[in-house]
Amino acid sequence: MEIDYSNIKVIGFDADDTLWVNETYFRDAEEAFGKLLSQFETKNKIDQELFKMELQNLPIYGYGIKGFVLSMVEMALELSNNTVSNATIQSILEIGKEMINKPVELLDGVEKVLKTLSEQYRLIVITKGDLLDQERKLKQSGLLDYFHHIEVVSDKKEENYSNLLNHLKINPAEFLMVGNSLKSDVLPLIHINAQAIHVPFHTTWVHEQVTEQDKNGKTYKTIQALTDLLEVLK
Amino acid sequence: MEIDYSNIKVIGFDADDTLWVNETYFRDAEEAFGKLLSQFETKNKIDQELFKMELQNLPIYGYGIKGFVLSMVEMALELSNNTVSNATIQSILEIGKEMINKPVELLDGVEKVLKTLSEQYRLIVITKGDLLDQERKLKQSGLLDYFHHIEVVSDKKEENYSNLLNHLKINPAEFLMVGNSLKSDVLPLIHINAQAIHVPFHTTWVHEQVTEQDKNGKTYKTIQALTDLLEVLK
Repeated sequence: MEIDYSNIKVIGFDADDTLWVNETYFRDAEEAFGKLLSQFETKNKIDQELFKMELQNLPIYGYGIKGFVLSMVEMALELSNNTVSNATIQSILEIGKEMINKPVELLDGVEKVLKTLSEQYRLIVITKGDLLDQERKLKQSGLLDYFHHIEVVSDKKEENYSNLLNHLKINPAEFLMVGNSLKSDVLPLIHINAQAIHVPFHTTWVHEQVTEQDKNGKTYKTIQALTDLLEVLK
Repeated sequence: MEIDYSNIKVIGFDADDTLWVNETYFRDAEEAFGKLLSQFETKNKIDQELFKMELQNLPIYGYGIKGFVLSMVEMALELSNNTVSNATIQSILEIGKEMINKPVELLDGVEKVLKTLSEQYRLIVITKGDLLDQERKLKQSGLLDYFHHIEVVSDKKEENYSNLLNHLKINPAEFLMVGNSLKSDVLPLIHINAQAIHVPFHTTWVHEQVTEQDKNGKTYKTIQALTDLLEVLK
């Protein structure tokens, strides 16, 4: 059965790994972190422990690079049994600063898609992460003019979306969310009777992965690239 | 000459040190940080250097506790010439977590003022800092119901205010901002022809202090406590 998008008036885009590359930089940082601590543990173990530390700190630090760096520092102390060198701590801080200063690398066809869709729909951005980082990336991206509204949210649960749509006076039935994370950009939307289209990024953070079970009985479309959106919404 | 507030329809409140205690916790953290590093430098020198480090990192880390903690870690490495102990780094991370977990302590009369004014005006919050921290504090404060809108901004310059008022369709001439920082809550507003009332907090971060010069030819009122607002707007 084909999904009907004819009601849609507003399209929300996730930003990280939907409009531009992001997760790749976290993977690179984890790689560098693993090398820095390789005298203490295997790469695999370091990855696992860092992930646990991030999850543990998520309620207080939230999403974004600064919390990630703080978790790396804490992990370095723990993994090394408090024997890690000052130079390594310094290197961890540098990894963070490099991440923050990465240039914005748009994914294929993003500008064309936004330009085309902005003629017919109201486009908004809904993204997690550090406020300053996301504003900086949006400015650098050159995409700001295509969007009616930018919202940086602390989380992407049903409640966050409901509150936001309510606040922006958007009827869920007229709203379509597009993003790379099933957990954050797709499932919460179909649960509040909005629509969602999934555009997988080649790398997805473990914390964002969901099992098939969550999807039972709910309908959303998966496309291979953002540019497919133009065909789907034709 | 008395300032006329009869046009005002919307009142914006700063949050940290206007609705609740904040700067005090940063001063306490600096105190603790100074003690941790007292073997390397005098308290005074540590304060100065930490302040410089914060300013240097502000463009990349922005405002908020996480950036402050990262600056403290960086400062500890630098001040100690890379000889600081892992235990001290651990203590710095702990200072940050304690700050994030501080309970919200409302300033005197805040609830009464908001309750009274919310009957006649649209109230909004405009605050800097970490998104997650500010949301958490607002929830804990029990004040959420008094506000039509919450905006966490990455900075509080004229441009930030202009964009926000424009976005919320608020006429600057009908807008009054209330806050403890001349630099962030008062001067940018009177420069864009909105109104502002200054409620000094007993502690103001050096970075937020301004000289008399900035104020030339612009008019705003200073009150001693938030509760005075009820008298001023009567």
